[in-house]
Amino acid sequence: MTHPEPSAVTVLGLGSMGGALARAFLAAGHPTTVWNRTESKAAPLVTAGALHAGTVAQAVTASPLVVACLTGYDDTRRVLEPVTATLAGRTLVALNSGTPAGARDLAAWAAEHEIRFLDGAVKDVPDAVGRPGTLLYYAGDADVFAEHAPTLRALGGDTVLLGAEPDLAKFYESAVGATLLPALVGFFAGAAAARGRGIAAGDLVPYAARWLQMIGEVLPMLAAEIDARDYSSGASSVNLFLAGADWDLEFAREAGIDDSWLRPLHDLVRKAAAAGHGEGSIAAVTEVLGAG
Amino acid sequence: MTHPEPSAVTVLGLGSMGGALARAFLAAGHPTTVWNRTESKAAPLVTAGALHAGTVAQAVTASPLVVACLTGYDDTRRVLEPVTATLAGRTLVALNSGTPAGARDLAAWAAEHEIRFLDGAVKDVPDAVGRPGTLLYYAGDADVFAEHAPTLRALGGDTVLLGAEPDLAKFYESAVGATLLPALVGFFAGAAAARGRGIAAGDLVPYAARWLQMIGEVLPMLAAEIDARDYSSGASSVNLFLAGADWDLEFAREAGIDDSWLRPLHDLVRKAAAAGHGEGSIAAVTEVLGAG
Repeated sequence: MTHPEPSAVTVLGLGSMGGALARAFLAAGHPTTVWNRTESKAAPLVTAGALHAGTVAQAVTASPLVVACLTGYDDTRRVLEPVTATLAGRTLVALNSGTPAGARDLAAWAAEHEIRFLDGAVKDVPDAVGRPGTLLYYAGDADVFAEHAPTLRALGGDTVLLGAEPDLAKFYESAVGATLLPALVGFFAGAAAARGRGIAAGDLVPYAARWLQMIGEVLPMLAAEIDARDYSSGASSVNLFLAGADWDLEFAREAGIDDSWLRPLHDLVRKAAAAGHGEGSIAAVTEVLGAG
Repeated sequence: MTHPEPSAVTVLGLGSMGGALARAFLAAGHPTTVWNRTESKAAPLVTAGALHAGTVAQAVTASPLVVACLTGYDDTRRVLEPVTATLAGRTLVALNSGTPAGARDLAAWAAEHEIRFLDGAVKDVPDAVGRPGTLLYYAGDADVFAEHAPTLRALGGDTVLLGAEPDLAKFYESAVGATLLPALVGFFAGAAAARGRGIAAGDLVPYAARWLQMIGEVLPMLAAEIDARDYSSGASSVNLFLAGADWDLEFAREAGIDDSWLRPLHDLVRKAAAAGHGEGSIAAVTEVLGAG
């Protein structure tokens, strides 16, 4: 059979992300069983065609593939501890938030109970789940991934296995995601300044989006400098950013916005200059951030 | 004549950005005169076809349009103060770094000396100058802009007049540029963590670039919330980010990287929660950044 029936899948945890995962499986035609601690969250998914399991044991029994999107690794383990015998031989995919250490611990626990395991991360908002361009990355055994990739691809067209080490997805999620809050706070600070001036935040958007794109375009060059530990190109130098720091603070003062979040960033730039990287590329800040 | 001869232009200040500006004018066929405090920086531009003026007075006399890319507004004024009589009736475009207040002061000084004036900002790296997609924005008189836009377009295909208030370009530059350093530090922190784990920064790049693009795509929604001061959508809530703050710190500890720059960002999120926005969108952080 060239087009096998979409296989059954179970989703545990129906928060905004878990609900989006279940809807994407349903949209791709997978028989989908859902469970949530607060039962009411299952109702709209039942309307959309899901089976609602009243217990975790029933939910796990329903499918060879169980996707958990609970509050964190501890929660996932607490919920699944009573059903390890049922889970044995099935595949568990953890798509909750957490740290690399949490993923390693859950992987060890899964191995102990002969549960096949993948850890994963959605690098996007719940609304993007199920779209062809949406990226999800996974870590774990290549055979387990190969078996379930056709099903997992329902969650996003760009489904990547980073490697066998079970914490790689969470590691990449944390390392890559480190730009999110700082970039947003930068935008909010600009928006706060604009409001004080009678300019709408929406007027900044086309320029801000383009600026983020430009930052994305210089990352390959900065990464090459970091990997070579050679910052001598100095196109955008530490000293240039130090000069900019003064403009930043003057602008914040003029616009009446909080600069508490800016100063520690400037301190890092100053530390890079003090370490002898003044004329070097701004990427030299990596050298003063630790993990040598 | 449907294709007028490219008009003459003078560039003062040949740092990395000033040099890029001069090269872009030359590439577009404009007779280009250059001046720099340190004369040696003019040599490669002379090779590329520029005229090198030994004094500021000669440089200003050479062209109806004078583009200044010096260290800041004070420096620009200091350099031009002796030649105000020559500058009168010509157009000065300031493309240096600085704050909105600096732009207002220079505009007032220019008006006093009957110098036609535009302030501008390049929202990109020097390497991007002269490309069709590169954005430069300007503030000042619409007639002056209209007259020189064909020449200024040599610096970047996307040449925008933001309005007549002379500080608007610097205002937008500062407000929009507020994402740059925080986003870069986020990437460098991820790269430092990756290095500790034996993963190359280059391996993070495709994912990090995509993540920045995703952030750009949610800005219109966040800006709409900010402009309406209605954060009730709460798709990515303040509380969700507060929970993420704990993962951030645990990851930093695990990876052995500095978290000094992260804590003030978390404090802002905490402040937004304390102000009653816990279940609201993360855009509510704007409300605690000041400029009410």
